[in-house]
Amino acid sequence: MTVLILTCEEDVTADMVVVHLHETGVPVVRLDPADLTHGVALSGEFVHGVSRGHLSVAGRLVSMSGLRAVWVRRPGTPAARAAQPSEWLTEESAQALYGLLRGTGARWMNHPDAARRARHKPWQLGLAQRSGLAVPATLITTFPQAAREFAQRFPDLVVKPVSGAHPQEPPRAVPTSRVAPDTDFAAVAFGPTLLQRRVAKRADIRLTAVGDRLLTARKAVADDADPEVVDVRFAVSTEPWRPVDVPPRVGAAVLTYLREAELAYGAFDFAEDGDGIWWFLECNQSGQFGFVEMDTGQPIARSIAEWLSVDGTADGSGPSGAQVDGSCRTSG
Amino acid sequence: MTVLILTCEEDVTADMVVVHLHETGVPVVRLDPADLTHGVALSGEFVHGVSRGHLSVAGRLVSMSGLRAVWVRRPGTPAARAAQPSEWLTEESAQALYGLLRGTGARWMNHPDAARRARHKPWQLGLAQRSGLAVPATLITTFPQAAREFAQRFPDLVVKPVSGAHPQEPPRAVPTSRVAPDTDFAAVAFGPTLLQRRVAKRADIRLTAVGDRLLTARKAVADDADPEVVDVRFAVSTEPWRPVDVPPRVGAAVLTYLREAELAYGAFDFAEDGDGIWWFLECNQSGQFGFVEMDTGQPIARSIAEWLSVDGTADGSGPSGAQVDGSCRTSG
Repeated sequence: MTVLILTCEEDVTADMVVVHLHETGVPVVRLDPADLTHGVALSGEFVHGVSRGHLSVAGRLVSMSGLRAVWVRRPGTPAARAAQPSEWLTEESAQALYGLLRGTGARWMNHPDAARRARHKPWQLGLAQRSGLAVPATLITTFPQAAREFAQRFPDLVVKPVSGAHPQEPPRAVPTSRVAPDTDFAAVAFGPTLLQRRVAKRADIRLTAVGDRLLTARKAVADDADPEVVDVRFAVSTEPWRPVDVPPRVGAAVLTYLREAELAYGAFDFAEDGDGIWWFLECNQSGQFGFVEMDTGQPIARSIAEWLSVDGTADGSGPSGAQVDGSCRTSG
Repeated sequence: MTVLILTCEEDVTADMVVVHLHETGVPVVRLDPADLTHGVALSGEFVHGVSRGHLSVAGRLVSMSGLRAVWVRRPGTPAARAAQPSEWLTEESAQALYGLLRGTGARWMNHPDAARRARHKPWQLGLAQRSGLAVPATLITTFPQAAREFAQRFPDLVVKPVSGAHPQEPPRAVPTSRVAPDTDFAAVAFGPTLLQRRVAKRADIRLTAVGDRLLTARKAVADDADPEVVDVRFAVSTEPWRPVDVPPRVGAAVLTYLREAELAYGAFDFAEDGDGIWWFLECNQSGQFGFVEMDTGQPIARSIAEWLSVDGTADGSGPSGAQVDGSCRTSG
């Protein structure tokens, strides 16, 4: 039973996981959908009530029924590197590849449908509330008057994108920024705007969930930190990420969130306030983890490899102790 | 409790449903996401563990918690008609609108996740097999040799797109075509190709499923039909669509398919062969129905209106006989 990794060639984070998979002896196939029809080939047939499929990567043939797990990391646009790329070829290739893979019994990290749903920030906030996480008061609006009233109730606000990274080439992260007290908000009418009560934070928290394993790290806000820079991704800091225990209530709520969202992997960002409360900011279903593993030494890559290695006949609830010890080895 | 219809202005098929909704007295709001920030406004807030949202369409305010159903018909690209449209504004608007709607308790026809999944032809074929429908032998491949072997086993083949309509402006349907006996198949290596055993059909079948109500129509192949034209959408025919009973086994399999696919609406295409067997060709989760209703008089639009009118407190299993009689009327 093979692990299929859908990602681009230059993905060094995937390399970290592949090393661990190789150690456990689980067969791994790494495939970039961009290579379809040029290095990657596929075939699926539906005959007399039976279906079967194959992938070929660099001359190696893999049966789709032999896939135990599919890890959707950073896949390229299907057929983007074909001899004659086109929108039509990309669409045909995407439907063929993902359509065939959807028919396998493989476990997904993460399933494309769950991944797509999980990107919706408003949906995230509602689910976080229902799961029992603390969510800073948030408004998403195109009504200037609603924004003004919200700013009266919560005078200290930040603004951030609804959707994430700006879709330029390459995509650019848009920093979360503080809202000046005298902001007029008339421009809100021209595009949905996400306003959120600023958490006066003393630390950033990154909780990486792999199956039901939660690996949590904390980065204290330095004493001399610029109070205008609220986005940890853009802050200059010498503080490292350090391992931290997850409060039991938060841990339980995170597991509820993951179950409801049908996610096998999620990178949760929290802001820890002066009372020690962890405020949910977002859950990135494809969030990077290399920087946390580098700082903390937490075995995130190994946890992912173990989750992917679980045999398809298992109950899918995550790696057990036995599998952590390597008892899941297989030769094919 | 309001019915929200997401569609463009020129959608006359939606008009047919709106007429029936008006008859039952159910409030209807019709919204084109293309009008976002210019005629359409939205707002959602998440405060102290509670979320609430509103839409404004042409000055009319609708509470998101008051939505009983969302009908995704032919929605435009979000914010496409904004004063300054951009890819970024479209992405922000899509995430805001659909992210907020996903958080409501409304029933969907069809839910965006189910709709997206249902478009994958390979996934359709596998599900149709598992549901107990007869599926013509099909191959989807980029291996020329696999295509050649398939053509030896099934010499009479058609070829069709994996993905559906060609994404030009406006999108163009690509006809299913017969494959010449001497075809070489070398070009299969340049793009996924769907080959299917040709059904020697005596009729086309269109089964329109609305909830668990199945409305079925049959169009006989005329005696003088051109045997080279296998795609009913492109055939010149004076034969009308006529109502036909659905064979019980097919009906049961279709209901299994819909349940598994989590679809509230589906337009199934079958080819009826000389033995009377209905061969599954595809299920279009947003298939047109106006032409069938025109020919047959079948109450498809009314069935959709009734499905949408069911109160959100119902069990969601589709309109009951009582609702067909109009007992579901409400003033708001």
